[in-house]
Amino acid sequence: MIKVGIVGGTGYTGVELLRLLAAHPEVEIQAITSRSEKGLPVADMYPNLRGHLDLVFSEPDMSVLKACDLVFFATPNGIAMTMARELLDAGVKVIDLAADFRIKDISEWSKWYGMEHACADLVEQAVYGLPEVNRAEIKTAQLIANPGCYPTAVQLGLLPLIESGLIETHNLIADAKSGVSGAGRTAAVGTLQAESSENFKAYGVAGHRHLPEIKQGLALANKASVGLTFVPHLVPMIRGIQATCYASLKNVDNVTELQSLYEKKYENEVFVDVMPAGSLPETRSVKGANQCRIAVHVPQGGNTVVILSVIDNLVKGAAGQAVQNMNIMFDLAENAGLTGIALVP
Amino acid sequence: MIKVGIVGGTGYTGVELLRLLAAHPEVEIQAITSRSEKGLPVADMYPNLRGHLDLVFSEPDMSVLKACDLVFFATPNGIAMTMARELLDAGVKVIDLAADFRIKDISEWSKWYGMEHACADLVEQAVYGLPEVNRAEIKTAQLIANPGCYPTAVQLGLLPLIESGLIETHNLIADAKSGVSGAGRTAAVGTLQAESSENFKAYGVAGHRHLPEIKQGLALANKASVGLTFVPHLVPMIRGIQATCYASLKNVDNVTELQSLYEKKYENEVFVDVMPAGSLPETRSVKGANQCRIAVHVPQGGNTVVILSVIDNLVKGAAGQAVQNMNIMFDLAENAGLTGIALVP
Amino acid sequence: MIKVGIVGGTGYTGVELLRLLAAHPEVEIQAITSRSEKGLPVADMYPNLRGHLDLVFSEPDMSVLKACDLVFFATPNGIAMTMARELLDAGVKVIDLAADFRIKDISEWSKWYGMEHACADLVEQAVYGLPEVNRAEIKTAQLIANPGCYPTAVQLGLLPLIESGLIETHNLIADAKSGVSGAGRTAAVGTLQAESSENFKAYGVAGHRHLPEIKQGLALANKASVGLTFVPHLVPMIRGIQATCYASLKNVDNVTELQSLYEKKYENEVFVDVMPAGSLPETRSVKGANQCRIAVHVPQGGNTVVILSVIDNLVKGAAGQAVQNMNIMFDLAENAGLTGIALVP
Amino acid sequence: MIKVGIVGGTGYTGVELLRLLAAHPEVEIQAITSRSEKGLPVADMYPNLRGHLDLVFSEPDMSVLKACDLVFFATPNGIAMTMARELLDAGVKVIDLAADFRIKDISEWSKWYGMEHACADLVEQAVYGLPEVNRAEIKTAQLIANPGCYPTAVQLGLLPLIESGLIETHNLIADAKSGVSGAGRTAAVGTLQAESSENFKAYGVAGHRHLPEIKQGLALANKASVGLTFVPHLVPMIRGIQATCYASLKNVDNVTELQSLYEKKYENEVFVDVMPAGSLPETRSVKGANQCRIAVHVPQGGNTVVILSVIDNLVKGAAGQAVQNMNIMFDLAENAGLTGIALVP
Repeated sequence: MIKVGIVGGTGYTGVELLRLLAAHPEVEIQAITSRSEKGLPVADMYPNLRGHLDLVFSEPDMSVLKACDLVFFATPNGIAMTMARELLDAGVKVIDLAADFRIKDISEWSKWYGMEHACADLVEQAVYGLPEVNRAEIKTAQLIANPGCYPTAVQLGLLPLIESGLIETHNLIADAKSGVSGAGRTAAVGTLQAESSENFKAYGVAGHRHLPEIKQGLALANKASVGLTFVPHLVPMIRGIQATCYASLKNVDNVTELQSLYEKKYENEVFVDVMPAGSLPETRSVKGANQCRIAVHVPQGGNTVVILSVIDNLVKGAAGQAVQNMNIMFDLAENAGLTGIALVP
Repeated sequence: MIKVGIVGGTGYTGVELLRLLAAHPEVEIQAITSRSEKGLPVADMYPNLRGHLDLVFSEPDMSVLKACDLVFFATPNGIAMTMARELLDAGVKVIDLAADFRIKDISEWSKWYGMEHACADLVEQAVYGLPEVNRAEIKTAQLIANPGCYPTAVQLGLLPLIESGLIETHNLIADAKSGVSGAGRTAAVGTLQAESSENFKAYGVAGHRHLPEIKQGLALANKASVGLTFVPHLVPMIRGIQATCYASLKNVDNVTELQSLYEKKYENEVFVDVMPAGSLPETRSVKGANQCRIAVHVPQGGNTVVILSVIDNLVKGAAGQAVQNMNIMFDLAENAGLTGIALVP
Repeated sequence: MIKVGIVGGTGYTGVELLRLLAAHPEVEIQAITSRSEKGLPVADMYPNLRGHLDLVFSEPDMSVLKACDLVFFATPNGIAMTMARELLDAGVKVIDLAADFRIKDISEWSKWYGMEHACADLVEQAVYGLPEVNRAEIKTAQLIANPGCYPTAVQLGLLPLIESGLIETHNLIADAKSGVSGAGRTAAVGTLQAESSENFKAYGVAGHRHLPEIKQGLALANKASVGLTFVPHLVPMIRGIQATCYASLKNVDNVTELQSLYEKKYENEVFVDVMPAGSLPETRSVKGANQCRIAVHVPQGGNTVVILSVIDNLVKGAAGQAVQNMNIMFDLAENAGLTGIALVP
Repeated sequence: MIKVGIVGGTGYTGVELLRLLAAHPEVEIQAITSRSEKGLPVADMYPNLRGHLDLVFSEPDMSVLKACDLVFFATPNGIAMTMARELLDAGVKVIDLAADFRIKDISEWSKWYGMEHACADLVEQAVYGLPEVNRAEIKTAQLIANPGCYPTAVQLGLLPLIESGLIETHNLIADAKSGVSGAGRTAAVGTLQAESSENFKAYGVAGHRHLPEIKQGLALANKASVGLTFVPHLVPMIRGIQATCYASLKNVDNVTELQSLYEKKYENEVFVDVMPAGSLPETRSVKGANQCRIAVHVPQGGNTVVILSVIDNLVKGAAGQAVQNMNIMFDLAENAGLTGIALVP
């Protein structure tokens, strides 16, 4: 059994991690920390866990965390970077679900996240935890930067196109839509049900923190920088992201290769489902499941490729992907604890 | 492995049964039938099952069904009663998720369901599949009438009170609220999102088919008929039922016994959670889970007991309870395949 | 034109008042105050008002407010009572949409609202602004206590029954359901869309502030105290309240009188719609409208009367009723500015 | 008073038309027809109209319709074209809210709508009822083709750009999102609340009927055909459309002109609101209102223009625009009956 600690488990990625780990056959949760909720039974905050998890939130205690095989950080940005080194030095593996280790360019990171980085050297050493891209590195990594939700949906959607060389890469568009759980469990007027339900809007058009993360991933695949316009929108539902991505084919004759391009790229990936030609993926088809579903379209005989990519932002976009990374790091079946079927209806 | 057939799997109880059975460690689904969808892969109708279930809807074929150990009917009312005898005669066990075998009084059944009953003798032999009441009979039953969703929530909520003899039984009230999935997957104007969302209303006030079923169960516990006013309401959400039940204490002094009365009644029940005094159960705490959560209140020093009982109408109120019954009938762990944790948020 | 001031216009009752007053033919809004939002154009906070209202939030200024004919308080509880006397002394009429003047028993008020009352004598003088009960007093009142949302729905539903003397009054039940806008525009975890949507729960079962207000109104009609169990629930929608009220008929023979009892009681009331026998009112049928719709049922030949009463909590349950009171106080047509039709779908 | 008839008033555009016309100061509704609902009081189908409209659905009767000044068709596609000529010949003005007269190229229309056109000559004579483009022609028109909902949002968003000549017109993208009322009031599985709520998906990617309508309008402004990729999506809310439109600036230096370009274009338009630079329009800000709100962005110093355009699909996207056209045709104030403020929250 893998001994696991969770730092900061009161948010939505935290409770989702608990839901997945409580049912994981190879995991023993040693501690879940929260300064503000110290002493509170986890199931009092999340009654869905009543009868499944007997843990109590505890104050972060390095001696307890150092005795773990793996520590997940489900904390706000800027916390993991202050605690990771001590854990790594003690031989503990670390998966950060926040953004502290995602961006390799430290000054870029500081610009978007508005703080100095506490351990630039660790950023270099961290492996970006998108298994479909970095599985080999993840296997031997000690520190994982778990990808953001939008970046997961957009990269899985666009990477095959970019690697293929068939499209222009200076004018990519990712029109992305997310449910409100993406905004977290923090009290805020904008995501009150009376504000965000029965409403649709774009946000972060001028610039969103996930933009540099996506561009970094696409540029790596492109072996050159890419031009990307990324417009996120808030959808009046709890879970789910759809990215509708647009790219221009260099040569219309290549239209016929696209479906098989995607099928081949992901044929061995259990968590990426390339749907049959003409499909229209729905976010609910992955609700609660560690799955990305993708469909490829080139409408009306034109040269604009439209990629539809859906995930559950809290699962493949956060906690599920973190568990997938853990499974890879500890040589477990990659789908251990991740076989749950999406809840429909 | 138990060989299972499902007749009529295109509705919401059908897909929920598939979600649970696809992940059940002791079950092999042999066939899932649908006349109208014959030939269609199940995962084309329910993309959440893509990668989890390779079955195709087939025309009902008695020879296939008779080779099963157990056949579930997830059909409209009036179908199971025309096919059950042949299966039972062939030694197959049957669980009907519809209402054909729930009401012992045949003329009462005909009045509410608007048809003649095809096999009154089987009704007598059928066991009402509420495990918390009839576990012993279920164990040896060949034919199970799986309870309705409202009847499950209301009976689990009121039975301890009635058995205790502490309340009046002539003026019981069950003010019940259900999500829209209770109306099924049939195209209908009234449950279009543009009609039922952002709306709340009572329905079936003059008389609802679940009323005689509830009264039958309560009367058995009471060893006499009961007076019950049952008012169902439609809640703008997909899954979940809350029953708010009201009863008059005969003697206010007995208030202090109520919490422990419930705790004792259900102390060995893995799927009924009596919450701590003062609790306010939420339907989402059981979303996707085979669980009933109950809280007991007597507000403001009065003599009116208020019981709050929540279930997921498609799980403990339908498919999950059916699997629970199967587990009991086949001597499996009662929670086999039913350990999934509710999806929150 | 009536010169109107609004103190505290940033919450949902405030913006609803603005929506109604901006279109009112006889009103001129002089000032809308908010300490925290001082200087902000109202339409920046509420873009639905762009092009309809040019006002800017200002700091409360007594000289400006005293120059008004009427001041509405759309403030949290406890504010109006500190400012009302000065306005009243200056000859300004006051309508408080909060609870400061609703409960005549000052110690009861203090118990429920957790503060000392600043002006007990004004409470005595204040008129409870339920026009269907107190129209004559409202006409000449200087200070109006605008009713709460639940109290409006429950009282309009139960008053005819109580006045008739046909029912028992010791065991009344009001099972009430409200949309989330009832919780206001304050950032709070419990009403985040990710928490409150796709969920149903009771709250305040042990005791809710609207309970003493309802009991006071029913007792006045009953000329004696009443026994009432009041259980509010949170419905996953923005606007709307339904109260499902239960009462025991003293004599079943009186069933036949009930429909006409309600029709007569409200025959001259433009804002109370007694629906035909057998009707099932929907909250959306009053969404955005100053209307209460009521249906009367006595199910299954029993002696339990079921009254269904729906309102929009922000209109007939708050801002609309306040405008109705203003119209009465200033001898305008009672429906001036209140003829808007509910938005369906 | 203008005598108005409505053919086919049972759908959502029909009831919205009734809501607007019932409150219109210059209109007298003479008849509202529905073959299937003949004899039913309109308010029985739409209880929000109780007390506001005393009409009964009647069978279509040409003699009654010919006595009207104006007949609205709120019918399915293909009906208006069979009745329009007789009405026009009788001197009646006609506004078709369906698509019969929107596409000038008859063979293109037949391809998308799957039927032969009954009166190609009338198509030529019909005026496309987008007042911001065709006000002068509408003034003297006898037959109006009221625009589709998506076409209204996309054209109002893109036309100023196209007219300016500042952008490429071969690779336009309109990523559009609509609430479920756009699918109409027809019973259908796909828009059941249990299917469409808590879900997001694209649809019609291969080709949507509004595509040729949009391209026709843009081509007229461009004086040449345009290349457009149009991807509609279904949003889990009742009302509202957002179009997120993307276009490539020919010259980045022109970025600074865009905001004033839009402000000038629409400075005299009461129903188009160009929001301040940096704004993020919300669909709820126009819920129930005849308004389009637009914001202009060029993110991250790039050359991709992002236009955000929101409308209520049933108002500015259907019934409200039809009333606006009527006002223009009959020389009324253009906003007569259209001053209602959007319902927030």
